[in-house]
Amino acid sequence: MRANTSLLARAAPLLRRPATTTSIPTYSTAVGHARRCISHTARRCATQDPKEPRLLSEVDYKGRPLKRYDPRKARRRSWLLLAFGTIFVGTLAYDMATNSLEPSNPSSSESLEPPTIAERDALAKRESGVSPTSSMRLRMESFIKEQQKQIIAELEKIDGSKFRIDTWDRPEGGGGISCVLQEGNVFEKAGVNTSIVYGSLPRPAIQRMRANHKALDPDVESLEFFAAGISMVLHPHNPMAPTVHLNYRYFETANADGSPNAWWFGGGTDLTPNYLFDEDAIHFHRTIKEACDAHDKGYYPRFKEWCDSYFSVKHRGESRGLGGIFFDDLDETEKDQENLFSFVQDCCKSFLPSYIPILLKRKDMPYTEAEKDWQQVRRGRYVEFNLVHDRGTSFGLNTPGARIESILMSLPLTARWKYMHTPEPGSREERLVSVLKKPVEWV
Amino acid sequence: MRANTSLLARAAPLLRRPATTTSIPTYSTAVGHARRCISHTARRCATQDPKEPRLLSEVDYKGRPLKRYDPRKARRRSWLLLAFGTIFVGTLAYDMATNSLEPSNPSSSESLEPPTIAERDALAKRESGVSPTSSMRLRMESFIKEQQKQIIAELEKIDGSKFRIDTWDRPEGGGGISCVLQEGNVFEKAGVNTSIVYGSLPRPAIQRMRANHKALDPDVESLEFFAAGISMVLHPHNPMAPTVHLNYRYFETANADGSPNAWWFGGGTDLTPNYLFDEDAIHFHRTIKEACDAHDKGYYPRFKEWCDSYFSVKHRGESRGLGGIFFDDLDETEKDQENLFSFVQDCCKSFLPSYIPILLKRKDMPYTEAEKDWQQVRRGRYVEFNLVHDRGTSFGLNTPGARIESILMSLPLTARWKYMHTPEPGSREERLVSVLKKPVEWV
Repeated sequence: MRANTSLLARAAPLLRRPATTTSIPTYSTAVGHARRCISHTARRCATQDPKEPRLLSEVDYKGRPLKRYDPRKARRRSWLLLAFGTIFVGTLAYDMATNSLEPSNPSSSESLEPPTIAERDALAKRESGVSPTSSMRLRMESFIKEQQKQIIAELEKIDGSKFRIDTWDRPEGGGGISCVLQEGNVFEKAGVNTSIVYGSLPRPAIQRMRANHKALDPDVESLEFFAAGISMVLHPHNPMAPTVHLNYRYFETANADGSPNAWWFGGGTDLTPNYLFDEDAIHFHRTIKEACDAHDKGYYPRFKEWCDSYFSVKHRGESRGLGGIFFDDLDETEKDQENLFSFVQDCCKSFLPSYIPILLKRKDMPYTEAEKDWQQVRRGRYVEFNLVHDRGTSFGLNTPGARIESILMSLPLTARWKYMHTPEPGSREERLVSVLKKPVEWV
Repeated sequence: MRANTSLLARAAPLLRRPATTTSIPTYSTAVGHARRCISHTARRCATQDPKEPRLLSEVDYKGRPLKRYDPRKARRRSWLLLAFGTIFVGTLAYDMATNSLEPSNPSSSESLEPPTIAERDALAKRESGVSPTSSMRLRMESFIKEQQKQIIAELEKIDGSKFRIDTWDRPEGGGGISCVLQEGNVFEKAGVNTSIVYGSLPRPAIQRMRANHKALDPDVESLEFFAAGISMVLHPHNPMAPTVHLNYRYFETANADGSPNAWWFGGGTDLTPNYLFDEDAIHFHRTIKEACDAHDKGYYPRFKEWCDSYFSVKHRGESRGLGGIFFDDLDETEKDQENLFSFVQDCCKSFLPSYIPILLKRKDMPYTEAEKDWQQVRRGRYVEFNLVHDRGTSFGLNTPGARIESILMSLPLTARWKYMHTPEPGSREERLVSVLKKPVEWV
């Protein structure tokens, strides 16, 4: 691990990629590539152990589910190519849902090839479990799955009903856990997903990435990658209680010998109320700012601005909500890997204290039918942002074989589009819109 | 007119452009171009005449509203450049909403320039009104506005409530009439829009169009264009009554002397039920087929297939609805202009007989809460298609200054996204989905 990090430290100075220059691959590019993908017949992640709680069924990082792993079968495996036209790390929480690749190039499937990083990780988990000396891939996977458990436990306690939990494997390596609570007592819809993806970047994708990651070798035919992310959207029933979104992710590419090549972290969280309570906005931003400030006083202002700029419903000329933080491509040029992992962990851990006090204060407030109607109109705007502008959703929907239900769990249960609906002058609704048109410094 | 058509006949053989190769301009391309656009200060379309019914307020093709037209002011006008990265005729019904261009290049604004086609058309309407010998631009404008009046009159009779009518001008030439009936007795939301756009294609757009329209001169700096379209979406309350969509449009580019350069027609109509009544599907398709057959026996099968292929919610692997017809780029290589105009007119006129009998049969049928719920889920899919896949909506939303409310009038009033919602085996809901997964030949 240390050696790997040091290799990266040398390779990384030119790797930083500004988010503004990345582009979304077209549907036809993705389809075209999927057709050239090499099949992968062996299932590498173990299936459910009936003694494990369901959430942990394919999660186990103590090694048990991996007993069916067979290295002889693994040798017959081809390199995996994923249907990525351009890899954009901002999309990873969604891309991870990709799980259908068409077979091709069967003649090469019998050749002896070095173990993939998925195989290396499976072996490492089986032999030693996950500890602070494990690779960042395993530690990030372990961290987001722990966070997912904590968050859903807390939300179930508040709602009084249970999440539905769906676990799914990617035959190529990795898988996901989608947890959704729908039509609960407090939540109209709440989704908390984690996903792990092992795959290979094809040559055209590497060449496109080289624009911002000069250290990537343009001559290799493919490059293995790993991505892990947690993604969450909560839509409460009560129009006084805000919607909230969170997403943290880690991306890594590997050299042919399995050592890390490039890596970066991304993520953020943002609050979308229907009615503005200044104290809620201040509490949310202050909690996040504290998590940021503990690592770098410059983070909160930079990432708050990035968030305002990303979560913009451009065609309406307004923000999706009151913002929060958003960042991407945080790599060695920013801080060392341990520092950044620690930062992302603290951001993620700050979610419950940033949101739960607001939810508890608002979830049982009285409201009128007109206020419920306004919530529905605002949810329409949420749908517009997610389906029209969000790069992750767009990429996911255009990726053949993606798990659509996991991608679209972010949409509210209900939404409304009223023609020419404008709030009354001087109303609370108008005040919200004016703030969405001009982001505020809350702390 | 004859002379123009004959010019076109000679230029047109290479102009046909397959819809599959057109691309949508990016937001940044459109913004970039908008910044280079030349301002246009004079208002060319007359404003409301209080003696006219409101629907006709900016519509008048008898010449009256044009009395404020001043040719001396017009001479000071610059050529108009519209924020079109690539013109895609399938988007015209929406593009027409574009009405905000930033000023630049003021030095050229005082030069003497030939009259624009907008000016020529305004003059022609003032002097002679619109007759069968008028230009296709004026005849198409007149036709779609008549159709709009007839359709809304019929729908108001059935619903018992009135459409809200918004007329708007494009300062650069043209304008629109948006008619929306919301929360009526029969319709949850019904929108019938017409739009007229005069503008100029900038050089990069012309160069991109040359891929499929070789006759376009790659050396001109800009090319005037005209677009006219009618666009409609009806969402009834009753889940047994289907949603329907219609759109017909005409596009033309002009040479420097105002004579037509390239032109084409596009459009179609399709039916989206929540519950399948075979007789409705057969009636809808048969009525359209009869309109097509009167012109060319090959039209219905070709345009039915094109419709199934276009209205596909790709990420769900299902069609939006039961289809109908869809066509684009119908120009001289297909039939002469008069023939095609007559075909488009007959298609448009077949709308009321194709849909109204179905609506009358279904609008008062009893239904359960579960059936209403299923309608809401299907409306969610309608929103997904329109926001994720529809090229017209996507282009419109990414065009600075577009009239968003006119573009998004196509969205239902209410929609719902239920996680992992699958119909009961053997249910009516399941039957609909199976038909959406594999289009049927209804006639």
